[in-house]
Amino acid sequence: MPRTTTYSVTVQFGDCDPGGIVFFPNFCRWMDAASLTFFMQCGVKPWRILENERGIVGTPLLEINTKFHKTATYGDTLTVHTHIEEWRRVAFTQVHRVMRGDDLICEGRDVRAFVKRDEHDRERLRAIPVPEDIQALCS
Amino acid sequence: MPRTTTYSVTVQFGDCDPGGIVFFPNFCRWMDAASLTFFMQCGVKPWRILENERGIVGTPLLEINTKFHKTATYGDTLTVHTHIEEWRRVAFTQVHRVMRGDDLICEGRDVRAFVKRDEHDRERLRAIPVPEDIQALCS
Amino acid sequence: MPRTTTYSVTVQFGDCDPGGIVFFPNFCRWMDAASLTFFMQCGVKPWRILENERGIVGTPLLEINTKFHKTATYGDTLTVHTHIEEWRRVAFTQVHRVMRGDDLICEGRDVRAFVKRDEHDRERLRAIPVPEDIQALCS
Amino acid sequence: MPRTTTYSVTVQFGDCDPGGIVFFPNFCRWMDAASLTFFMQCGVKPWRILENERGIVGTPLLEINTKFHKTATYGDTLTVHTHIEEWRRVAFTQVHRVMRGDDLICEGRDVRAFVKRDEHDRERLRAIPVPEDIQALCS
Repeated sequence: MPRTTTYSVTVQFGDCDPGGIVFFPNFCRWMDAASLTFFMQCGVKPWRILENERGIVGTPLLEINTKFHKTATYGDTLTVHTHIEEWRRVAFTQVHRVMRGDDLICEGRDVRAFVKRDEHDRERLRAIPVPEDIQALCS
Repeated sequence: MPRTTTYSVTVQFGDCDPGGIVFFPNFCRWMDAASLTFFMQCGVKPWRILENERGIVGTPLLEINTKFHKTATYGDTLTVHTHIEEWRRVAFTQVHRVMRGDDLICEGRDVRAFVKRDEHDRERLRAIPVPEDIQALCS
Repeated sequence: MPRTTTYSVTVQFGDCDPGGIVFFPNFCRWMDAASLTFFMQCGVKPWRILENERGIVGTPLLEINTKFHKTATYGDTLTVHTHIEEWRRVAFTQVHRVMRGDDLICEGRDVRAFVKRDEHDRERLRAIPVPEDIQALCS
Repeated sequence: MPRTTTYSVTVQFGDCDPGGIVFFPNFCRWMDAASLTFFMQCGVKPWRILENERGIVGTPLLEINTKFHKTATYGDTLTVHTHIEEWRRVAFTQVHRVMRGDDLICEGRDVRAFVKRDEHDRERLRAIPVPEDIQALCS
């Protein structure tokens, strides 16, 4: 079994749209928080420390695929279960299952990569091979 | 050629994360706005009027797949080009291409369905077949 | 001492701006969540039930004044302490103190009122006198 | 008359809450965008260039006071009219009037200061006196 972490969120009134259900970019926001929480809970240092020490700025998305199964509304408590499904040389696939109790609300599958700033153009970000020590912590 | 509409957005400082690039749920937010703008520009009435007249609450997402090609930052002007790629009986697939000039920043492919409130449980939403008049306006 | 409730939040990467600090509308979002949490913890029913039973849609803001004392960044755990400072006939003032441990990060003072939908124009919201039973629960 | 700029926004479905009206942190977001737009339209360079050239990171808020007069909903086009009401040595007060046609929807009064990163602690931000050249451009 791959290492799995959880991140909990209580849906707020302002997270919902005029239909009374969660406005879906909020699911993206919670899955992003779950992604970072996964790395922190696995013992990886916060991005701002990694940037100072090793130049690693974060893990921007290359692709995301999300399937929505049930709606959620304010007052619901959701738990995001996160693990890494596949490590490739540069990219990796992270899965986020958003549950309300035993109900699967939605499931997101991210492809991400670790990035550094380009030496010659600080505003440009470049993907780097997955750092071995980080992969070891997260598997 | 399917009918295509555009929605423009200027990226704001607060749309960007500590890495200085757009925090990706904002792309989801802009693609959602582009989705609704598409229907409005095609001549479909606003959801709150459709809800009063026909009980149609909106077009929640069933699935979204987004590929990120380039980053964007504040000050950038982005244009989202939206069209419907496929109409099925109940669901339809809408494509959003987010461009900065000639650069493709990201591309989202939504699967959505029109929904009504359940008669017996107003908090439950039920997918309905794509209304023919709306399909005609949007093709 | 007026009744006080707390609402906790862990600041996420995406809550921060390119300066690396919390983008302030997120504080507004957390104070709004704290406002609703206050009513729920005091035993007031969720808005969607109150709307069905009594026509009360929520407590929109009339005014908000927020003072920012210190910055916060991702990884910080913040606790919002909320109480009602003053009940007037129609409006009331709610105070939210956002703390990181013993540090006061910011303090918001909301003026809000309970509203119902207008009978003749469902899209118009009208302030009503503070319901006595709700005031009793929250004092 | 002080220099005044405008920033326009069309309210989106997802900007509204289950009551069908704009979720107020979105007004904060738009006023923040209007604040930055004001500086850009006055000829001040983008923050990321100012940070490289002069170490100025932005203009975080010290205080904000917003009065809400009317509600807005999706489909509305809002125009934010922004000017600087008062320059003090370090801080300045910026006013944002959010209009829908001739209707004043809300009015925000920000107190902000220009900040630099502390030399000894890069994560600490320090307010600096208002730069004279920037004040001249914006008056």
